[in-house]
Order: sequence, then C-alpha cells, then structure tokens
Amino acid sequence: MHLDDLVLVSVDDHVVEPPDMFEGRLPARFADQAPVVDRRDDGTEIWRFDGKEATNIGLNAVAGRPVEEYGIEPTSFAEIRSGCYDIADRIKDMDANGVIGSLCFPSFPQLCGQLFAKAKDPELGLAVVKAYNDWHIDDWCGTYPGRFIPLALVPIWDPPAMADEVKRVAAKGCHAVSFSENPSKLKLPSFHSDHWDPFWSACSDEGTIVCLHIGSSSSLVQTAPDAPIDVLLGLQPVNILQAAADLLFSPVLRKFPALRVALSEGGIGWIPYFLERMDWTYTRQHGWTGQDFGDEMPSEVFKDRVVTCFIDDPAGVEMRHRVGIDKICWEADYPHSDSTWPISPETLMKSLDGVPDEEIDQITHLNAMRLYRFDPFAHRPKEKCTVGALRAQAADVDVAPKRGAASSAKLTRASDLTGRPGTDR
Amino acid sequence: MHLDDLVLVSVDDHVVEPPDMFEGRLPARFADQAPVVDRRDDGTEIWRFDGKEATNIGLNAVAGRPVEEYGIEPTSFAEIRSGCYDIADRIKDMDANGVIGSLCFPSFPQLCGQLFAKAKDPELGLAVVKAYNDWHIDDWCGTYPGRFIPLALVPIWDPPAMADEVKRVAAKGCHAVSFSENPSKLKLPSFHSDHWDPFWSACSDEGTIVCLHIGSSSSLVQTAPDAPIDVLLGLQPVNILQAAADLLFSPVLRKFPALRVALSEGGIGWIPYFLERMDWTYTRQHGWTGQDFGDEMPSEVFKDRVVTCFIDDPAGVEMRHRVGIDKICWEADYPHSDSTWPISPETLMKSLDGVPDEEIDQITHLNAMRLYRFDPFAHRPKEKCTVGALRAQAADVDVAPKRGAASSAKLTRASDLTGRPGTDR
Repeated sequence: MHLDDLVLVSVDDHVVEPPDMFEGRLPARFADQAPVVDRRDDGTEIWRFDGKEATNIGLNAVAGRPVEEYGIEPTSFAEIRSGCYDIADRIKDMDANGVIGSLCFPSFPQLCGQLFAKAKDPELGLAVVKAYNDWHIDDWCGTYPGRFIPLALVPIWDPPAMADEVKRVAAKGCHAVSFSENPSKLKLPSFHSDHWDPFWSACSDEGTIVCLHIGSSSSLVQTAPDAPIDVLLGLQPVNILQAAADLLFSPVLRKFPALRVALSEGGIGWIPYFLERMDWTYTRQHGWTGQDFGDEMPSEVFKDRVVTCFIDDPAGVEMRHRVGIDKICWEADYPHSDSTWPISPETLMKSLDGVPDEEIDQITHLNAMRLYRFDPFAHRPKEKCTVGALRAQAADVDVAPKRGAASSAKLTRASDLTGRPGTDR
Repeated sequence: MHLDDLVLVSVDDHVVEPPDMFEGRLPARFADQAPVVDRRDDGTEIWRFDGKEATNIGLNAVAGRPVEEYGIEPTSFAEIRSGCYDIADRIKDMDANGVIGSLCFPSFPQLCGQLFAKAKDPELGLAVVKAYNDWHIDDWCGTYPGRFIPLALVPIWDPPAMADEVKRVAAKGCHAVSFSENPSKLKLPSFHSDHWDPFWSACSDEGTIVCLHIGSSSSLVQTAPDAPIDVLLGLQPVNILQAAADLLFSPVLRKFPALRVALSEGGIGWIPYFLERMDWTYTRQHGWTGQDFGDEMPSEVFKDRVVTCFIDDPAGVEMRHRVGIDKICWEADYPHSDSTWPISPETLMKSLDGVPDEEIDQITHLNAMRLYRFDPFAHRPKEKCTVGALRAQAADVDVAPKRGAASSAKLTRASDLTGRPGTDR
C-alpha cells in the first residue's frame, strides 16, 4: 500500500461552532434565548447560554499553532484556525491531510451536550439540541455531501425524548449520536439502570451508533493536586477503560445485541490486556458475583458490539487481531492537540508497516463506512477519495504553523484544569 | 522448556498475620498496646489497634475455597487455609505449587502499613512497624532460609524515620519495602513533592526496591454507585496505571536514577500502550508544559527503573519486548482470589508458549533474583528448586477446595466495598 492510495475516514474530529449557527433555527418563543458568543474584557470569546458560560480552551483548537503556544487558556475566534469553524476551510484542511470523511464532535456544548442539559427550562434545552442537530446535519455536514458522518446530540435529561430525537435525526440520515462514557459522573443514572432503555432501544432499532468520547463524563483523572498537567493529558484514555468495563458488565450490550457503541478517542493498545482482564475476572468470580454471559465470554460480547478507534497506536495495530480487526477505525482528532494533522497519512503509515492491504483498508475506511453507515463513494469515485487525489486538489492550502497573539502565562498543572468552566472538553 | 523445569519466584503473595506475631516484640512501654486479634459476636475475627479495627476480608484469603464461597465478608482464622498464616504450611503450599521463592505483602496493616500510620502516638506506630518487620524478616522469612524475599513496612508519616528503617532492615538483609502507589490519596504529599526524598535516597543508597502494590492508595475505582462488583474487580489494575504515569512525570525516577520501583500486581499487558501514550504526550506537549527528560524518552526511563510483574497475561507476554524483557517478573498472588494456586505452573505455561527458554528464565526467576536481590540457589542447588523437584516433596499436600462454614448473604456491588473498614486491601 502506497501512502497516496490510503482512503482515510476519521471517526473523531471536532467542530468549533461558528457564532451564527443558531440564527433562524430556534422557535420564535426561544429565539432570544439561543446561545450567543460574547467577547470578554480580556479579549477571549465565550458562549453564553441560560446564565452559563462556555469557553473554547486553547488545547482544543490548536491545529496550525506552534507547540510553544499550546495551552489551556480560553481563546477567541481570531486565534483559531478558520478550518475549525468555517466549513469551506475545513474541507480544504481535510483535503490537505488526505481525509475524505470526518465525524465531528461538538465543542462549546461539551461532548454529549452537557451544557444544554443544564437549561433550567427543559423545553428550551430540547429546542437548542434540535437546532444544534439541524445546523450540524444540514449546514456543517450537508454543505459538502459525502464528506461528513453526521453526529447528533440528544437531550440526556429525558430518555423518551432522546429516543424521539434519535428517530428524528435518523429520518434526516444521521445514524450516530454522542452520549456520555459515564452518565453516573454527570449525576444521572448509570449504565446499570434501565433508565436509558428507551434510548438504547431507539438506537438499536434505527441502526444508530452511540459514540462515547473520552471526557464525556466531565471528569478528568487527577492523581494529585500538584501533579503536572502531563499526567492528566497522558491519562485521558483511562476514563474510557473504566467506561468500557462499566458498559461490559452492565445489562446494556446483552439486552440490546444489535446496538453498536463506539469508544471515541479511546485508543486500541489497551484492549487486548483489558479483554483478558475482563475474561479473567468473569471466569474466576462470576460463581459468586452472579454475572451471566450465557455461552459467551465478555471479550466476545465486546468484540461483537464495541467499535474502537485510534490516532497513532503502534502496539495496538500490532495486536489488531486481539483487539478485533473488524471494529477498528481511525481518527485524526482535528483540531485538538493530539491531532496528527496535517501529516496524518505519514504518521499512520509508520504504524501500518507490515499490515496486509485488506486489513489497512478495513482500518482506514471500510470498518468506518459499514459501522457508521457512511458511503463517500456514492458521491465520488473511490480513486478520487485517496490521500493522493485529495492532496492534489489542496496544493494551495497553507498548513505551516501560525503564531497567534502573545500568550498569557501558561497554566500547566492538572489542578489548573479541574473545576474550570468549559474545560471538561 | 518442560513445565517441571520451570523455576518460579513469585514477587507478590500475601501473609495473613498470625495472632501471636507481636508476642515479645514490642518495647515494654508499648507491650499492652500491640495489635491484638479479637473475636466478634458474629464469629468473625478482627485485629484491634489503637481504637481501630481491621478485618481479613474473604476475598483476600480464598486459597483452597470453592469459588461459590468467595466473597467480601469478614472472616475468621478457622475459615482460612492454614497456609495463609502458618509458615510450615505455607512452605507446603508453595511446594505443591512449585514455587521456590515468595515475597509476601501484609494483610491487616494494609498494603503499606496504613493502619499503623493512624496511631495517635507516632512512637507507638514506629514501634509496631519495627516489631512487624522483625517478625516478618526473622520469623516469617527467616524460618526457611532461601524461600522468601523479605518485605518491610516503613513509617509513612515520617520520611527521615522511613530512611532509618530502610537502613535498619537492609542491615538485616531486607532490600524491599512497601510504599503507596499514590500517597496523595492517603492525604500525604504526592510523588511530585520533595517530602519523600530522604526515603528515596535511602532506598537508592541501600539498593532497596520500592514496591507499590495495587490498592496501596486505599482508593478503589468505583464507576457508579450501582455498578456490580465485577467492574471494580476487573478495574483493580487501573490505579497502578495512574500511579505509573504519576511517578513517571514526577521528579523521583530522574532525581534518583539508581532507584528501582516495582508495580506489584500491576500486570504487564497495558504497558506497551501506556509507554507509547506517555512518549506521545511528552513529545507533543512538553514544548509548552516544560517537562524535561533530557536526551531520554519517558518510556526509556520507565524501562530502566520500573520493575513489572504479572499473574497471567498472554498479551503482555507476547509483547514482552515492548514491555521490557529484563524487568518482567511473575507472581502467584497466593492466597488472594486472583491467585492461580495450586496450578500456577500450568496456567503460566500456556502464556509462555513460543517464548525462548532464556526469556522464560528471565521472567520466572532471573529478573526477580537480580532486582529483588534474592538467591535461593545459595541455599539449595538449582535442580532442587524446580517445579518438578518441589512438587515431588509435596505429594501429601491436599490442595482440593474445602468448604467453610455456611456463608452469609453475598455482598456483590462495588459500593458494598467502598468505605468498609479493612477493605482497602
């Protein structure tokens, strides 16, 4: 496989929502309560909604910035690369990186719409969720057909309404929704409750994949108050390991066998060990704990129902058959600080050394196309979807790092992040 | 390599302390304040010390019990297999399992002596720590020379006194100490503070390995209040992953390059992914976080200073060169519920399929002998230390599961464990 012949579908990127996104999208009675962007005295811009503030923190939109300017300070649109929020420029940045398809998680509403769940009036919250989804599906994804996998938010405070929204967006062609890796940490019922069954059931019926992104529990791993921020950044994927165990031993996957759940930005290298550990625990302990997987093992249920992905994970790729080759997808994580943009193909290619071509195709696009119900080839021939073809039409895109305005003092301890508004990704 | 030719040194087992262990070991002024075993009305036995109670919970001494009787209830000595607390019977159980050498963590004092740290009079606490160590080194390990790697406790509330105790026990031939995987969770200063430098320095000077056992932060991973206990049991090793990141980005390993730290019961299958993630984080973020590993990478520092071990970890063994082949040790975890006793050799052998003999020897005993400064061959010829030779002299040991008294109702939720006295392992 030559690098130029890769076909890349990224199942985890992020949109920084443009300020005008809600214009004309809310019912008249809520129109003056839409989230709005406001400029603060220090020059940073924030979203205001129902008395709450949400910032775009620096680390979440660093594409195109030199590493010395990474940081966790709030920022403003002027400091952010336009590909983060402008759809035409986003397409150019995708082309420059050789990426044909992308699924984009939200930014200011938080990863599964936690901000909208805080609305004092749940009807306002629901109206904003629907407006968000309409903008995301029709504007963000709809402007360039065949380039985006739409991802909807759901009203996480009301499972029957979640089911309704799953069905509504499915009718609009959206078959992916974002939910929390651990609703219990959001002070909602856990995966072990039947509270969410209307939602799981709707997703199962509609063939809608449920995406659990790292950080969607609004809880970060803080080992010690004075731990440097490197510890927190390095341990980001640990939450998803906990979520995976929680989900696997909950009734959800066994009760809804057609349901597919994705661990977004979860990485894959930890999965072989994790599956052995889950099978070990089940085999040795279920005699007294009462867990019942019938004639299956936990690892089999996981491999059948759980969709994985990685940015750059050489050990995981080496162990791909222990991970589950037919569920592994790839992601670029644009524009976050873990992103490999604009050299994703080059980065990925190193990990793919020795992998047969048919398995490379599964990992780079075929699994994502099947599991997320996305078909770019219906819109353009496959030979026009390759890294080489896309980059050829993006020769004029400037991907060199750009310096922003002078940065303020850096905040570099884990404790700088916890408890700050807008920092739970 | 034939199974009978394996030489097994286990770097993580557990002693259930016998009731008479403190007899004659405390200075006269503290003699009547020694920890004592007391029988409660419900038939369970507990240790009492300085107004605190500590139980031996069922899961921590289940060797020889049928799995249906596993549980987290407190128990009594009559319900526990004698090999847990009787040194002669422990040797028989080791022989029956083909294990020549063993390092034993404490039970009722908790994994790094947290109970003794709660003494209102720190002089009493120190006297009990010393008495515990003298019993452990002289009685438990000293009765059968060449069979045990002694492991000392240290007075974790007083770093200069920790250093003194490290030196005192080193003079007695003990070169391993137990410490917390995360002292911050014990409300003590974190690894990032220089508070512990006298301790690290003493261990470095004496060639004493510092063992961080999973659970030694007295904090369990609870995903949700209603999560089944399987989640908690399966996620036990997650704490050590957090501890490893915390330690790696702390000054400790770089400040004391001769220091060796062991992740006891930590498993190994997660390490390749972990090291890639730490290097990834460092490479991408240190430009703004200020971390400095000089001309090394975090993974190199880890592989050079951190000693690992596993019970049964096929993916980890397959990835042994990514883990670090010269630091991997093996453990039996007798008598905990994760233990493979009495079929440890058979269990291990499956994971070793395809591993060259010289690497098997590294993993089963050579690494442990070098890193824990233990030489059984000085006491008996190597050919008498093999699984086959030890089992030949243990033909009369009954290893069949024994039923205990009728169990009380099972406690099977994670929340049953958290907050209960004596349950933080």
